[in-house]
Amino acid sequence: MKILYIGSEGRVGGCAYAILKDKHEVITAGRTTGEETVDITSADSIKALFEKVGKVDAIVNAAGAAKWGAFETLTEEDFYIGIQSKMMGQVNLVRIGKDYLNEGGSITLTTGILADDPVTGSANSALVNGGINAFVKAVAREAFGKFRINVVSPGLLQNSADALGDHFPGHVPVSSEEVAAGYVKSILGNVTGEVIRVQ
Amino acid sequence: MKILYIGSEGRVGGCAYAILKDKHEVITAGRTTGEETVDITSADSIKALFEKVGKVDAIVNAAGAAKWGAFETLTEEDFYIGIQSKMMGQVNLVRIGKDYLNEGGSITLTTGILADDPVTGSANSALVNGGINAFVKAVAREAFGKFRINVVSPGLLQNSADALGDHFPGHVPVSSEEVAAGYVKSILGNVTGEVIRVQ
Repeated sequence: MKILYIGSEGRVGGCAYAILKDKHEVITAGRTTGEETVDITSADSIKALFEKVGKVDAIVNAAGAAKWGAFETLTEEDFYIGIQSKMMGQVNLVRIGKDYLNEGGSITLTTGILADDPVTGSANSALVNGGINAFVKAVAREAFGKFRINVVSPGLLQNSADALGDHFPGHVPVSSEEVAAGYVKSILGNVTGEVIRVQ
Repeated sequence: MKILYIGSEGRVGGCAYAILKDKHEVITAGRTTGEETVDITSADSIKALFEKVGKVDAIVNAAGAAKWGAFETLTEEDFYIGIQSKMMGQVNLVRIGKDYLNEGGSITLTTGILADDPVTGSANSALVNGGINAFVKAVAREAFGKFRINVVSPGLLQNSADALGDHFPGHVPVSSEEVAAGYVKSILGNVTGEVIRVQ
């Protein structure tokens, strides 16, 4: 299977990449890392990536940022950081990437537990994650028979707990293996329109 | 109770307005209707509205648009129609409006069933509705002890079924009274951080 994998070197993205890379033809891409360069905040950059890579069997995205900060402090511009990156970056990846999928292809996006169980500082993350979770279901219904689309929504990762755990009181970290399984289910399984919660 | 009610003349907004207007001091606002004028796509317009109206006990918003259209046809600009109106319009209403709430005040936003049960044409609506549903929970947790915030998510209204029903196959319309009750629960009740589904 030919897989375009954006954000494979991140803490979330690395989980499934480690499993897939030896059994499949995985093309990695990222803003500063990976074999190909892409800035998902730019539709032109996404388009150029697909023009270079050509048709694939699966598109995986684990890239995308949002602004962290207490709601009291967040400006309108702060909210647009997540909107332009993790939200519209992923929407544009689907809009553009769907035309570069082979028959039976799939798209796998990434959100996170902050859509369901937010903590202080996560209003922008909640907004964009919740939006993408609902968007995926809507697209999947319209894409019936054309392509599959799911989103993996991981909890706090064990590999991030030392750095981020203080911001997630009471969150039980999930393992890299569990997160990888969520992506594998979307890429190699038959599910569509699912928010695959690994939480 | 002094209530600022944006979008009171819409099919959704009108439901609770009909119940509240005689028992409370309700100030209506809208882009083209209402006592006060506001364009929720503009933070400056929202700020000007609150500067004129002053402090209130409750803020209710039932205004906001999204782009309707098959996913295959939606452009990046189309997605930003909903983002700037129903999504960031409501985010900015909370960001700005929270500072104009009297003690014990509340904010009530509006989304809709398309976040949970999308139909063909609703990818932009699903995105913005899902985003606001998650955003409200995140803000409510940070606003504990300061103000309450909820979102009412109505299904297809009986009063819209003739015009819109063909786009919502199998959706069971809800009555104006049921929708009104959702808003009344948020405004006069004690709930916070809830997606009040009237579906």
